[in-house]
Amino acid sequence: MDVVGSNKRSRDEESVEAEERVAAEKPLIKVAAICGSLRKASYNRGLIRAAIELTKEEIKGVHVEYVEVSALPMLNTDLEVDGTYPPEVEEFRRKVLEADSCLFASPDYNYSITPLLKNALDWGSRPPNVWAGKGAAAVSAVGGGRRAQFHLRQIGVYLDLHFINKPEFYLNAHRPPGKFNTSNGDLLDLETRENLKEMILSLQAFTLRLLGKV
Amino acid sequence: MDVVGSNKRSRDEESVEAEERVAAEKPLIKVAAICGSLRKASYNRGLIRAAIELTKEEIKGVHVEYVEVSALPMLNTDLEVDGTYPPEVEEFRRKVLEADSCLFASPDYNYSITPLLKNALDWGSRPPNVWAGKGAAAVSAVGGGRRAQFHLRQIGVYLDLHFINKPEFYLNAHRPPGKFNTSNGDLLDLETRENLKEMILSLQAFTLRLLGKV
Amino acid sequence: MDVVGSNKRSRDEESVEAEERVAAEKPLIKVAAICGSLRKASYNRGLIRAAIELTKEEIKGVHVEYVEVSALPMLNTDLEVDGTYPPEVEEFRRKVLEADSCLFASPDYNYSITPLLKNALDWGSRPPNVWAGKGAAAVSAVGGGRRAQFHLRQIGVYLDLHFINKPEFYLNAHRPPGKFNTSNGDLLDLETRENLKEMILSLQAFTLRLLGKV
Amino acid sequence: MDVVGSNKRSRDEESVEAEERVAAEKPLIKVAAICGSLRKASYNRGLIRAAIELTKEEIKGVHVEYVEVSALPMLNTDLEVDGTYPPEVEEFRRKVLEADSCLFASPDYNYSITPLLKNALDWGSRPPNVWAGKGAAAVSAVGGGRRAQFHLRQIGVYLDLHFINKPEFYLNAHRPPGKFNTSNGDLLDLETRENLKEMILSLQAFTLRLLGKV
Repeated sequence: MDVVGSNKRSRDEESVEAEERVAAEKPLIKVAAICGSLRKASYNRGLIRAAIELTKEEIKGVHVEYVEVSALPMLNTDLEVDGTYPPEVEEFRRKVLEADSCLFASPDYNYSITPLLKNALDWGSRPPNVWAGKGAAAVSAVGGGRRAQFHLRQIGVYLDLHFINKPEFYLNAHRPPGKFNTSNGDLLDLETRENLKEMILSLQAFTLRLLGKV
Repeated sequence: MDVVGSNKRSRDEESVEAEERVAAEKPLIKVAAICGSLRKASYNRGLIRAAIELTKEEIKGVHVEYVEVSALPMLNTDLEVDGTYPPEVEEFRRKVLEADSCLFASPDYNYSITPLLKNALDWGSRPPNVWAGKGAAAVSAVGGGRRAQFHLRQIGVYLDLHFINKPEFYLNAHRPPGKFNTSNGDLLDLETRENLKEMILSLQAFTLRLLGKV
Repeated sequence: MDVVGSNKRSRDEESVEAEERVAAEKPLIKVAAICGSLRKASYNRGLIRAAIELTKEEIKGVHVEYVEVSALPMLNTDLEVDGTYPPEVEEFRRKVLEADSCLFASPDYNYSITPLLKNALDWGSRPPNVWAGKGAAAVSAVGGGRRAQFHLRQIGVYLDLHFINKPEFYLNAHRPPGKFNTSNGDLLDLETRENLKEMILSLQAFTLRLLGKV
Repeated sequence: MDVVGSNKRSRDEESVEAEERVAAEKPLIKVAAICGSLRKASYNRGLIRAAIELTKEEIKGVHVEYVEVSALPMLNTDLEVDGTYPPEVEEFRRKVLEADSCLFASPDYNYSITPLLKNALDWGSRPPNVWAGKGAAAVSAVGGGRRAQFHLRQIGVYLDLHFINKPEFYLNAHRPPGKFNTSNGDLLDLETRENLKEMILSLQAFTLRLLGKV
């Protein structure tokens, strides 16, 4: 990097300028974040809140937006009339469509994803499929999540989602020591926060490649 | 089989008697049948209706009961209060508990089972797990279903369901010629009915083994 | 248990007699044990040795036999001539055929089973399929094994193997403290031995049900 | 496309020039093609030959090279000495390393990939993992292949391979009418050839994105 005249200015001026240049170089990507749990104090939703916070504070070029899926009716194609969907579904589909990639936070229920998450995935897949071509990543706060994430990846093949391979992000939050505030689901553990940040950086890099913006 | 004095009686008397003896020998098994689709004219529900009919008419010792799952709320463990579940959930769990085995009819949505079916499976898994130790079989009327059934089998490991291996039952009902009445989902195709019968006989035999009644 | 005249005899006489009666009641099952690793000091083979020892010492009615698969050629149907197989393959198939159930010990290689184990499974599946209808269980000493075992279960559907659902048996032997003798792979950990025993008892019970001997 | 002075030259000159410009714009990608079958007249190897031919003739910027895996010993980490591998393994790993993406042709053996292919994947994964970051696609000539390809994709997550999502390529070559020359495995069917071409174009586009060359 060739910074002419840098000796005339303070270090801070320089670094701010450098960061701004990086931000200018890296186009903003939008990430739709979807939680697979309905629980109020869900640790998985806590992970999404942590992702929103840390991208604001520490990652340039990534905007994570929480997309609510709890109001979606249970999928029933009888609800589709003349190619239109119920209003909550249309609203949900529009938000996903605006995103460049997706972040799924899902516990492992009986070795698979939750019905809530599957319902959102299925509504989004109705024509035209709103997931097509996007980058994706998954986090699981509870119950291992390895198998749930594998089901999610298989579903993603049909949805045409491109999941990052690494890092994989699994927690077993019920194993001590506690990593979350049990009453509201907030992430407390700093190491987990760092792992989450690393994962989002990987999603950012992969999404930019998919967009041809590297 | 030693039938003393058979020459004195008509063939019909004999065969009725023989059938009754078989029925007496083979204990009755109850099969809870669950449909993964909400569509009114669902072909998968049509398969369950066909299973109910043909067991009544042609298979001794098997009683198939349709168990409705459309009224279950989306799974949310916040809805559990002092170890009790919402009334619709308790009702559903009671019916599964009374069955010896389960018949799942599920389309393939995006390479996995439907959210409706996953929701029912998850509610049933809440402690005490009502699926534990039962026999199981799956049928799919639409979209191949191979991958959906594999997800179902994986989930079944945790639920402690024992799926029959053979025959596997997949249809691709949208491929001509039509096998179902499109307006109400009734199964019309006789070959498919025979395959379904074969599958139920396999489920019966396997369930009796699991029950130690062979 | 009502043992008439027990007061006339010693406790030992009684218990030996009782055990013999139990042994007489429970028919012997044969278990073919197959190791997915070629390593000399394989921990997975160590688990099989432990299974052989503990069944001899502590479990009546189960005979575990180690079946070697390292000499099998890589599967190639060109090697099949007039429906016969190479001698090593015939020998292997004969041993599996004689067993009532199977115990697979396989590490997790890249989220799946090893090529060695897949090769044995595939040779056994050639017509007539020697796995058909048997009970099965899997243990994994290294690398988690959750995903390897799921692939194994999926393969088992086609092979018509009936896997027990519970207990599932996974180790991560590389995580301290050491559970194996690193130089020869012998199992040292007593708790693991107990878990292994519990699994074999589950396999025994399930196999007897499949055989209709309960 | 703005071709200045085109009216002064022949059509052939122009089109050669245009093609060269396109070739110059699209960097060459190398594809390592691996066959999961040992059979001499394997249809899967026939698909790879077809891929080699059609890329030479019709797709600029893609060089498909057949990588032989039949000489690899069965994986055994005891064969690794001081971080080096047997010569055949080193040779294989070098060829994969030179490629930008991979094309796997594998039949479905018992709902999974073949031991031959798994063995190649596992040898390549030994440190340093030679698959890391590459694009990938899979074709299956026989037996459906849906489940085999899903196992392959799951394995690919750990190997850090990025599979294209679409098009998926499955054949059931044993279903009439014949698509292959049964004596040597050559692909005869033109529609299949077109589908194969479409898949390679998708792999090319995806690989270029992964390489940041779009």
